[in-house]
Amino acid sequence: MNPRKISYLVIIMVFVSTFLVLFKPYLYSFKRYDINYKGEEVMLPEPRLKGDMSVEEAIAKRRSIRHYKDKPLTLEQLSQLLWAAQGITDEKRKFRAAPSAGATYPFEIYVVVGNVKGLKPGIYHYNPFKHSLTLIKEGDYRKQLQAAALNQQWVGKAAVNIVLVAFYERTTRYYGERGYRYVYMEAGHIGQNIYLQATALGLGTVAVGAFHDEEVAKILGTEGDPVYIFPVGVP
Amino acid sequence: MNPRKISYLVIIMVFVSTFLVLFKPYLYSFKRYDINYKGEEVMLPEPRLKGDMSVEEAIAKRRSIRHYKDKPLTLEQLSQLLWAAQGITDEKRKFRAAPSAGATYPFEIYVVVGNVKGLKPGIYHYNPFKHSLTLIKEGDYRKQLQAAALNQQWVGKAAVNIVLVAFYERTTRYYGERGYRYVYMEAGHIGQNIYLQATALGLGTVAVGAFHDEEVAKILGTEGDPVYIFPVGVP
Repeated sequence: MNPRKISYLVIIMVFVSTFLVLFKPYLYSFKRYDINYKGEEVMLPEPRLKGDMSVEEAIAKRRSIRHYKDKPLTLEQLSQLLWAAQGITDEKRKFRAAPSAGATYPFEIYVVVGNVKGLKPGIYHYNPFKHSLTLIKEGDYRKQLQAAALNQQWVGKAAVNIVLVAFYERTTRYYGERGYRYVYMEAGHIGQNIYLQATALGLGTVAVGAFHDEEVAKILGTEGDPVYIFPVGVP
Repeated sequence: MNPRKISYLVIIMVFVSTFLVLFKPYLYSFKRYDINYKGEEVMLPEPRLKGDMSVEEAIAKRRSIRHYKDKPLTLEQLSQLLWAAQGITDEKRKFRAAPSAGATYPFEIYVVVGNVKGLKPGIYHYNPFKHSLTLIKEGDYRKQLQAAALNQQWVGKAAVNIVLVAFYERTTRYYGERGYRYVYMEAGHIGQNIYLQATALGLGTVAVGAFHDEEVAKILGTEGDPVYIFPVGVP
């Protein structure tokens, strides 16, 4: 190669690497898993970014609550809970409400809706990018979910069940075996946000970790692995 | 046995079972792991149970912060962070700030103190029952911890590092293999509380999950398994 060709090559390389460093297209191409189910879509009301209960008060008051009244949740309450679980809190960088190892975000959130004002019972998928729910299948699946969750009554009686479903490989492809640990830790981050947000809204929830994974996956119709169920209701 | 002896026996059995049901001594005998290290003990200031930042605001503002000023934390701030991590929030039943599968509480909290007003540098163990710190060994171990944590700078530069150390068998003896999953999820619950409390206090932290477990354990002088490190500093 003559010197002119080399300098062209260098200039092109500088442009390409500047583009890669500044715009990070590789980050978005393999990091943003934007699952869009086909089905009726419900736009959720905007979450509020300030509230009435302080962090300290919510931590002090938070308890695992297993008994709920037969009362509906509002769409605003469900919107707020889903935002606290996995909502986008940094529009530009698409960071979420709960931290994730290497921002790999292995979780998809499914909602088993039984009793929410203005929302037909069914199984929904939460889309954090649009802050919307997509109906996967219609019907009240709470009793089926309860059966899959070793018959824990609170699952069947809650107004909704928020289910955290892991797609491990999103994280393990970067971190290997230790990635599983990070995924479970992230389930805890998300879960604590749900707990605290429920407390701040005057709602009750409990972390349910014991269930038949495959049966829950089948009910949801997901290819991922259910890791945590959060029944939520009016205490 | 004659009828009189039988009725005495029945009366005694009723008393004993009433005692067992009401006071649950078996719960405390095997569930309360009250580790008391020998060493200088520092009583922490009482945590505040209300604050200025709402749950929603803290979730919205929380970020992973890796750069800290060379400024000390106050003892009040450290007290508040430790309370949010593992403080007792139900005096009677000894429930804690973060939920735990079957209330088995597998975690002990160690603090690598470097720069806290009124507290000599050293490695401390947090006693949630007394809300106190016990000095295990004196000296600034932050650089050693940084080296064990794949040389992540923020570990060495933080005012303190809060280390979550798991004693798996406390949980796995009840839940078997699945217990490991529950322990990691609990690390996430605790971690999210630390994140949100730090945000509410205007402090910065980041979840560090990558380190050489045995080396960190050796620095702390613990028989448990370090699972998470939270460097905390003034951003």
